[in-house]
Amino acid sequence: MKDFEKIIQSINWQIEPVSLYEPIYYILQSGGKRLRPSLMQIACKMFGKDGKITKNAAIAIEIFHNFTLIHDDVMDNSPTRRNRDTVHKKWNVNTAILSGDAMMIKSYEFLAKVPKKYWQKVFSLFTKTALEVCEGQQYDMDFEERDIVTIEEYFKMIRLKTAVLLACSLNMGAILADAPVKDQNLIYKLGIALGIAFQLEDDYLDAYGDFETLGKQIGSDILCRKKTFLLLTAMQKIDEGKKKLMNVTLNSKIYSDEEKINVIIDIFNSLDMPKICEVEIEKYYEQASNFLNQISVEENQKNELKTLINNLKNRQK
Amino acid sequence: MKDFEKIIQSINWQIEPVSLYEPIYYILQSGGKRLRPSLMQIACKMFGKDGKITKNAAIAIEIFHNFTLIHDDVMDNSPTRRNRDTVHKKWNVNTAILSGDAMMIKSYEFLAKVPKKYWQKVFSLFTKTALEVCEGQQYDMDFEERDIVTIEEYFKMIRLKTAVLLACSLNMGAILADAPVKDQNLIYKLGIALGIAFQLEDDYLDAYGDFETLGKQIGSDILCRKKTFLLLTAMQKIDEGKKKLMNVTLNSKIYSDEEKINVIIDIFNSLDMPKICEVEIEKYYEQASNFLNQISVEENQKNELKTLINNLKNRQK
Repeated sequence: MKDFEKIIQSINWQIEPVSLYEPIYYILQSGGKRLRPSLMQIACKMFGKDGKITKNAAIAIEIFHNFTLIHDDVMDNSPTRRNRDTVHKKWNVNTAILSGDAMMIKSYEFLAKVPKKYWQKVFSLFTKTALEVCEGQQYDMDFEERDIVTIEEYFKMIRLKTAVLLACSLNMGAILADAPVKDQNLIYKLGIALGIAFQLEDDYLDAYGDFETLGKQIGSDILCRKKTFLLLTAMQKIDEGKKKLMNVTLNSKIYSDEEKINVIIDIFNSLDMPKICEVEIEKYYEQASNFLNQISVEENQKNELKTLINNLKNRQK
Repeated sequence: MKDFEKIIQSINWQIEPVSLYEPIYYILQSGGKRLRPSLMQIACKMFGKDGKITKNAAIAIEIFHNFTLIHDDVMDNSPTRRNRDTVHKKWNVNTAILSGDAMMIKSYEFLAKVPKKYWQKVFSLFTKTALEVCEGQQYDMDFEERDIVTIEEYFKMIRLKTAVLLACSLNMGAILADAPVKDQNLIYKLGIALGIAFQLEDDYLDAYGDFETLGKQIGSDILCRKKTFLLLTAMQKIDEGKKKLMNVTLNSKIYSDEEKINVIIDIFNSLDMPKICEVEIEKYYEQASNFLNQISVEENQKNELKTLINNLKNRQK
């Protein structure tokens, strides 16, 4: 994805008003995995078309994704992202809101640059997905206020918040490659499974990852009582005594944040949560592979996507 | 616009997650002037086409407009709008951010329902306008931090923040009516002049309007030192002594908000600001009328737009 990195870095944001566009430049050149553009390009090439046609749709999706990060960081009050201050921390909340809004509009601007014959499909998929991402974020926030969230609800939430955008990226690559509708549906489903695995991994890394590698605070989900797969599964497995211990710890005004995180992670460890996570994540990667197998292109055409999936599986950030 | 009112009220927002869509329903059924849909429909009819074709584009623009109100109210920390709590006040800031985001996306969803042959023009105009509105809001916020803002800068800001969306509404009506490009450009310019007059009136009403009629706090611009036409013009006309009085008053911890507002309005009155405002507003209505005169349709076709302009001229809210 070196090409895409060059492309996205080359967009000119040095326009007026500086205070609106500078934060957009700031977040877009702060890197990230560029996973969604990669997925789109790889899907397009898998179906035999030059990946270059995905350029503008990929920019649209990447800008949209970064817009959601800016607004999510405001809502979650997160101070750090990709080893740097978040936009609302570096500037302020109003700037984060408004620059995010402008990015959302910019996404549509770039999307409108795809060849017109794809407009209907591409707009409809993007709009549906973008709304679902908002819905997912809303469920995520709602869950923070609730005491009881089922694992089923959790999976619905991460499907919306994370998986649909990966699925959309793959699907859009397939659309732009004129892939058969059957394969478009398969690659969408593949994206959903991949996205769920990806989010489970994210939850896992928030507790077990490394600050330096990850570029953000470890244990932030624990501290703000995010209803993650780890927490929800742990709650099902522990007795009332340990539940109380968790609650008292998290509400404590004596423990430092680090101490709180350590107590909770000790409980997770006692329940073998890393292993349970691993098994669950593997299940969804398996699903993704099964969908890939059903797609009607030559096996060697699938290699690039296989490699990307494998890399995601072994990611540390 | 009874028809449009029915149409916008009939959109189903009773969908999950309730916490995302309920605030959208709340703001959309809180009324407002529906000025932008009216402009679009009237423009379309003026060029001889049934206004019904504007339905979805009008919904898109009205949803977009209300989205900007929700986010602006967060940024301005406004407690009241249309006699009711603002969304972030009734729910919270996070809800206001996210429901606003969803509305922005919904605008594009409705826009995509216009007949395909108009997509290119309609999308391009809408996206350009939406970005400009963000830019205008950013300038408005920037100006609050600055000591010196020129009147020229002020006019640039209100053109972006307010006028372009009125111009876009008129222009879109003309596009959907297949009006000649020359007339499309004229009606756009008419919209800019009308929008500037409209915003000047807004500034005027914020200081001189009636709370009940207006449905929001009087003098809020004064309290948050908004660089309005009133303030900027007054600053040009007063001596250092009065400038100091204004500053000391606004910074005072002894005066109540009401007292502060009264001191500033007394200064405005001593400078004959209501008259100066009236003359300036009239100038832009005059411009708008001149553009209308140049549009190449029968004079009697222009009556509805003329009436609307007259009503705006005499509005109390």
